[in-house]
Amino acid sequence: VSTVRIAVDLLGGDSAPAVVVDGALQACRADPGLQLLLVGPASAADGMLHALEPGLREQVDVRAVAASAAPVRGTGRGVNTTVRAAVRAVADGSADAVLSAGPTGATVSAAALGLGRSPGVRRPALAATLPTAAGRLVLLDVGSSVDANPATLAGHAVLGAAYGAVSLGLAAPRVGLLSIGTEPGKGDGVRRAAHPLLDELSLPAGAGYVGLIEGNHVVAGDRADVVVTDGFTGNVLLKGLEAAFDLGGVRPVDAPPRAATLLGVAGTVVVCHGAAVPADVASGLALAARLHRTTAVARLTDLITAGGIEMPENPRGDA
Amino acid sequence: VSTVRIAVDLLGGDSAPAVVVDGALQACRADPGLQLLLVGPASAADGMLHALEPGLREQVDVRAVAASAAPVRGTGRGVNTTVRAAVRAVADGSADAVLSAGPTGATVSAAALGLGRSPGVRRPALAATLPTAAGRLVLLDVGSSVDANPATLAGHAVLGAAYGAVSLGLAAPRVGLLSIGTEPGKGDGVRRAAHPLLDELSLPAGAGYVGLIEGNHVVAGDRADVVVTDGFTGNVLLKGLEAAFDLGGVRPVDAPPRAATLLGVAGTVVVCHGAAVPADVASGLALAARLHRTTAVARLTDLITAGGIEMPENPRGDA
Repeated sequence: VSTVRIAVDLLGGDSAPAVVVDGALQACRADPGLQLLLVGPASAADGMLHALEPGLREQVDVRAVAASAAPVRGTGRGVNTTVRAAVRAVADGSADAVLSAGPTGATVSAAALGLGRSPGVRRPALAATLPTAAGRLVLLDVGSSVDANPATLAGHAVLGAAYGAVSLGLAAPRVGLLSIGTEPGKGDGVRRAAHPLLDELSLPAGAGYVGLIEGNHVVAGDRADVVVTDGFTGNVLLKGLEAAFDLGGVRPVDAPPRAATLLGVAGTVVVCHGAAVPADVASGLALAARLHRTTAVARLTDLITAGGIEMPENPRGDA
Repeated sequence: VSTVRIAVDLLGGDSAPAVVVDGALQACRADPGLQLLLVGPASAADGMLHALEPGLREQVDVRAVAASAAPVRGTGRGVNTTVRAAVRAVADGSADAVLSAGPTGATVSAAALGLGRSPGVRRPALAATLPTAAGRLVLLDVGSSVDANPATLAGHAVLGAAYGAVSLGLAAPRVGLLSIGTEPGKGDGVRRAAHPLLDELSLPAGAGYVGLIEGNHVVAGDRADVVVTDGFTGNVLLKGLEAAFDLGGVRPVDAPPRAATLLGVAGTVVVCHGAAVPADVASGLALAARLHRTTAVARLTDLITAGGIEMPENPRGDA
């Protein structure tokens, strides 16, 4: 396997750095091509390096950030500093991808500022992959655009369609808008305004808009391969479904990673839940490695620009 | 058991009247005290009465509505007529409760207009009971208030706390606000504005506000017994979780009914999903019977008014 260098935010997550380190080591054992750059305060990083089993020492390096970046619980101050430094490692060419389990908002702004947005994208979107009765689907956004307007949802549809093609290998993905009924007109004001926008939208990768779908269709996977929603609804649903799958023992061995990909920025960025366990961090690192090895971001951007797809305009002009 | 008379909207639901009739018969077999008044076009009702097994004939009666009330698919026109007639049966004293699997909006307006709202309530809320790893919890709203403002969410907290006490027998229910993180400030604009309102609110039944919770806590049931959200998010989450529980085979024999109770109207109103199967309709009828037999609506209203609880004001003044 080819080498992939991933910058890891050592302070991201509720139980950082312990969970992040455990997840990093799991990932290294599973993938000898992984080269991790742990970004955090020297104190945390050094202790970890000393405890490393010899076989893994060559896969792990450390980038120390100033002691003032120590996290202040509840403020996300230190976390913001480490995620920004981790993003910088990608921007300066020291890493191929970045992973954080820190606050989503901090990671999204660090990535948008540090790597830049993809052409035409105003609102990056976090895309999660979920297991369904029929296979897998892409749900987006799961936490970035919490007060989304209709144009933002239309932008998610474009990004999600391209990601479904690139990441799940879907030909002509079916794109659905998550709502509370399937007949046009069902939903809140944002959904009622977004539906006609999506209906007229040109989508990449031969994707087609299938209309409104409901929460149960996200589990069945029968109506859509890409499910578009705002970051509030998507985050609530994702966390609820993951917990329900765990309770029911549904999670298969080849379950999709419990990590989300940030779409619409010019780099490979993976986000884990703040309450991620080491296996989740490891699955996020494996996802980041796969995205880099398959040049997913470049292919996604190509599908959109080469397809002549225009990103929907945001009439209010907010970023 | 005491007799309970329930008016049933024969045309409510995607597969009405067949599913409604099957569910009604299941419920009658399980509860000899049930007395159902099927409200619908004479054609549908007559065919059904003829097919009745003799033992059930005394439990089922029919109220025919004009043939013009035949449903027009997509418009909800006929459905609206039958649900209004079913509500009228409660208002005129011919029934003790009403059940519909028709469009939620039509049922809520028919009930609010036909039965009146409870004192101080501007926005009725649909409350569902969900199984959790820890037991059961109340989730509201699940489809009525789709564009909820902060005051509406505060009103849901009052209604939900009283319902948790009356329906689940909870002493001092813990009330949580569904969001995308647990620290204050997490969430969209509506949640950020609702959190301080809830924090200052007097709740009935000794209930206490525990702050923000996330989607996974709805499955765990560890942080809150009553989960407050808007009707859009609640509907998406409810349908997703029910499908995930089914996929995982989690649904226990004593699972809570797959039906929601309309809170804040002066009568017993139960709503089933449009895609309800006969067992769901039967569970909804059993729920309606239990609510009536335990005088739940009167006790809920008492908890709020006798407790001197003021329903939160809606600053925008919308209904």
